[in-house]
Amino acid sequence: MHQEVAMKVVIIGGVAGGATAATRLRRLDEHAEIVMLDKGLHVSFSNCSLPFRLSGAVDATDKLVMMTPQAFAARYAIDARTMSEATAIDRAAHTVHVRNLADGSEYDESYDKLILSPGAAAVIPPIDGIDGADVFPVKTVVDVDRLHTFLTSRGARRVSVVGGGFIGVEVAVNLAEAGYQVSLVEAAPQILATFDHDMVQILHKAMVDHGVDLIVGDQVSRFDGDDMTLASGRVVGGDAVVMAVGIRPNTAIAAAAGLDVTDRGLIRTDADYRTADPDIYAIGDAIEVTNALTGRPMALQLAGPAQKQARQVADHICGRTVRNTGYLGSNCIRVFDWNAAGTGLTAAQCEREGLRYDYAYVIPQDKVSLMPDASPLHLKLIFEVPTGRVLGAQAIGKGDAVKRMDVVATAIKFGATVDDLRDLELCYAPPFSNAKDPVNMAALVAGNLLDGDFRQVHVDQARGLVESGATIIDVRDPTAFQAGHLKGAVNIPLAQLRDRLDEVPRDRTVYLNCMTSQTSYTAIRLLQGHGFTNVVNMAGSMLGISLYEWFTDRTTGREPIVTGYCG
Amino acid sequence: MHQEVAMKVVIIGGVAGGATAATRLRRLDEHAEIVMLDKGLHVSFSNCSLPFRLSGAVDATDKLVMMTPQAFAARYAIDARTMSEATAIDRAAHTVHVRNLADGSEYDESYDKLILSPGAAAVIPPIDGIDGADVFPVKTVVDVDRLHTFLTSRGARRVSVVGGGFIGVEVAVNLAEAGYQVSLVEAAPQILATFDHDMVQILHKAMVDHGVDLIVGDQVSRFDGDDMTLASGRVVGGDAVVMAVGIRPNTAIAAAAGLDVTDRGLIRTDADYRTADPDIYAIGDAIEVTNALTGRPMALQLAGPAQKQARQVADHICGRTVRNTGYLGSNCIRVFDWNAAGTGLTAAQCEREGLRYDYAYVIPQDKVSLMPDASPLHLKLIFEVPTGRVLGAQAIGKGDAVKRMDVVATAIKFGATVDDLRDLELCYAPPFSNAKDPVNMAALVAGNLLDGDFRQVHVDQARGLVESGATIIDVRDPTAFQAGHLKGAVNIPLAQLRDRLDEVPRDRTVYLNCMTSQTSYTAIRLLQGHGFTNVVNMAGSMLGISLYEWFTDRTTGREPIVTGYCG
Repeated sequence: MHQEVAMKVVIIGGVAGGATAATRLRRLDEHAEIVMLDKGLHVSFSNCSLPFRLSGAVDATDKLVMMTPQAFAARYAIDARTMSEATAIDRAAHTVHVRNLADGSEYDESYDKLILSPGAAAVIPPIDGIDGADVFPVKTVVDVDRLHTFLTSRGARRVSVVGGGFIGVEVAVNLAEAGYQVSLVEAAPQILATFDHDMVQILHKAMVDHGVDLIVGDQVSRFDGDDMTLASGRVVGGDAVVMAVGIRPNTAIAAAAGLDVTDRGLIRTDADYRTADPDIYAIGDAIEVTNALTGRPMALQLAGPAQKQARQVADHICGRTVRNTGYLGSNCIRVFDWNAAGTGLTAAQCEREGLRYDYAYVIPQDKVSLMPDASPLHLKLIFEVPTGRVLGAQAIGKGDAVKRMDVVATAIKFGATVDDLRDLELCYAPPFSNAKDPVNMAALVAGNLLDGDFRQVHVDQARGLVESGATIIDVRDPTAFQAGHLKGAVNIPLAQLRDRLDEVPRDRTVYLNCMTSQTSYTAIRLLQGHGFTNVVNMAGSMLGISLYEWFTDRTTGREPIVTGYCG
Repeated sequence: MHQEVAMKVVIIGGVAGGATAATRLRRLDEHAEIVMLDKGLHVSFSNCSLPFRLSGAVDATDKLVMMTPQAFAARYAIDARTMSEATAIDRAAHTVHVRNLADGSEYDESYDKLILSPGAAAVIPPIDGIDGADVFPVKTVVDVDRLHTFLTSRGARRVSVVGGGFIGVEVAVNLAEAGYQVSLVEAAPQILATFDHDMVQILHKAMVDHGVDLIVGDQVSRFDGDDMTLASGRVVGGDAVVMAVGIRPNTAIAAAAGLDVTDRGLIRTDADYRTADPDIYAIGDAIEVTNALTGRPMALQLAGPAQKQARQVADHICGRTVRNTGYLGSNCIRVFDWNAAGTGLTAAQCEREGLRYDYAYVIPQDKVSLMPDASPLHLKLIFEVPTGRVLGAQAIGKGDAVKRMDVVATAIKFGATVDDLRDLELCYAPPFSNAKDPVNMAALVAGNLLDGDFRQVHVDQARGLVESGATIIDVRDPTAFQAGHLKGAVNIPLAQLRDRLDEVPRDRTVYLNCMTSQTSYTAIRLLQGHGFTNVVNMAGSMLGISLYEWFTDRTTGREPIVTGYCG
């Protein structure tokens, strides 16, 4: 018989972090009393899967609920209570005040240890006329069920999505796949801030290619029913509005209890996710975490980190020490037939952090080009100058972009340099990769840059070069050149270059391009071998530049810098 | 004008390693004279893609040739000579003796630096009657063209493949996909020695499921035409025979020149891939490399390492130093709709090396189980005891097995422990993974094992336990139990276990199982919390054990230990 007095742990919030903490606690301590409170109708649902209900990929709403309170009780002896809102914490008394939303009753629940995993709520901004619109957040099973039921029962055809973060984009994609006519409005100049402005243009095009009316750099100023008038004056008609402009941490009771909460509403914790009160832990979307690369605090609303924190807290409560190694923010998203992933810092973040950095942008095939489904993989590898330390990466392609970012995320955890990435020995067979994986390839280019083997300009510099009449030599074969090239570029195929050296100016900077900048790199080395010190590679070349330019050309009607888009 | 005397480099072998060395050399030195000799009809073909010609995935043989001698000349000023066999090296004179196989002429080619990238030849064993059979190796474009032409022109229907290594299996798979009736004969008890015996059973079943007549532990003793009689007496009929039993390094001229060649015919090199002669380098399938984990020499016939060696040699010749960090042997293969990958040491290798090791075997879903194409991923993670250093891993599934092995391969390069793998922050969205990636999951189990949180037996121990009447408790729900369970197992669902503790014996070892060993682990922790010290988890449980047993049951007719196979 077990004789000790059992420990009692109360957990506020029963989704990703809360449910993980509860079950790990049970596995570590069969005798602890574990109470899990959630104000919603469900605990333990797959919040990341909510958007997939809208396309039918998840074909029934109740499948989104992974464990019922009954299952928590039977399998884990966990007292999971839904519709149970924690309204206050009495730290001195070690109690949580709970309101039963089903019957209105209230009570105090005592705890030895308290875990706050309250998550965050969708922000519904006070826009003119919003009360008259059919506005839906997508944060809970109830939310997505309401939206799905509304759309199907009303025969809605047009849905406006406001906000281009992960949830907004996933909702837009899934609704478009279900046949709805979708508009997506994002106030920033781009969707998905985890991707740099250059890379995300590929996804902008993917959205448009699949029928989404994508509007960036604009915002809703007024609703008339479900129609929206934007700041630009543009009117976007719709039958329903999904609001995904952001989330607000549910940390009011933490603040009211005198715990340390930041201006952004995030709870501050120590390395073991303990708040200022040693008997109260906090995890998940509601806390501030440490960026593993910069050492600085950051918000991070991702399920993987929440689960790691949950496990670490359960371990700590049970006397086990786990090292908190910080977070990279590794992330991924499917945008129709494109896969996109990133890890570590973006170039934009490096800029804001004042880091000295550069990046390689390569576009190799994701597998042996002979394979029927081979496709270009756009990979941006960001590294510190002059150390070569890997700071981050982004990959977008129809093939396995996520794999490459998982590899980089793994390497970054060990403080990898680009030379380390070059040396990685990754799995290769023609259906899966190339003998040089795209990660190796990007690292080779990065190493060449660090070695000073060549200089480059980036895709976002191409327009300025074309418009200023810079000397651009395209080294592809004439047929490829004819199909589309940078305006003003001169065609000297690589195979003719040694015989036509006298056509390459020596008195001004000469920019070399091709399809993906790999052949132009060879041309650069060739020319340098003949004494040219004035040659610069155009990273990304026609494929990268075409994709970079396409969406803005299309939406602004500006003059294209290419005679024909590639890719 | 360039005034120095240009360096002259001769390369023997113009496929993976040779062609890479040649082009890297050119990029580093525009003025070097580069001569690349190959005795075959082609240089620079995709040898890894050869089997894919047979299914039609590669729809024309000439697509396998990536660069012609003309293209090497025009783009890289490389003198690539096909049908040019190097027959001797005169180290003192710094010349290679070359025979032109097209016209029979012979000449000496001088070099400053010589790179040996001769590859290896298919072994055609002297089996009785082999001269009367239609025997095809698959090592070159000419080989696969001959085979493809033979099969299609003769209307062949049945093909026998001898040898179950990568080439043999890929040929068998591609031929089966093309509609041929394929038999595969392997002398060892399993195909693909890079996978452990437990894991490879999944691929054995995949082969049979897709109609391949797979015969292991048997070998050809006689040919009668294209029919084979095996050592067991079994006769395998066929219209053609693919011989893929092994390869022999083409190192006779290296040995004849007095370079250091091992008993297995592999050239020994220093860390920069220089042979005993400082002006002669050697790379690719023909050399011995260093295992990064054991520090011991090994053979490694993989394209990725060959390309790395090629680049390093070119760099070294041009005065750049690159560190040789050894090799893991990361590998992957598609076997019909299954993807399989591995890196580092197998458990069998650990055993041979006398290492103290253990392994976790987990079978999580490869992505969120709600996604329509989610499927189990079988992942074996091998680690050193008691350090937790990761020694190797294997993954097999219909989903992204390769990604997970790339992650482990990356981690191993940094000397990772299982705790490092646990902490990895990999990309997560429902179409790509779970919040805990299978790699994290395997690492958590491995950590629990190292912490002594529970004990386990492996899938290859299940039969002994069942046959000896061990006490096995299956903690799944009754419907799952009824569909198939270990013979003699008792069913106590996890949800009832706390109420039925008195049914669990305390006087003997009790083995817990379920579908994938995750629920049984929870049961183990529950029972340990109630003082049971006699409980052991069955790693892999019903899904792992079913797949482990299926092929041998089927081919030997032995009594199954399960009442119904799962998975």
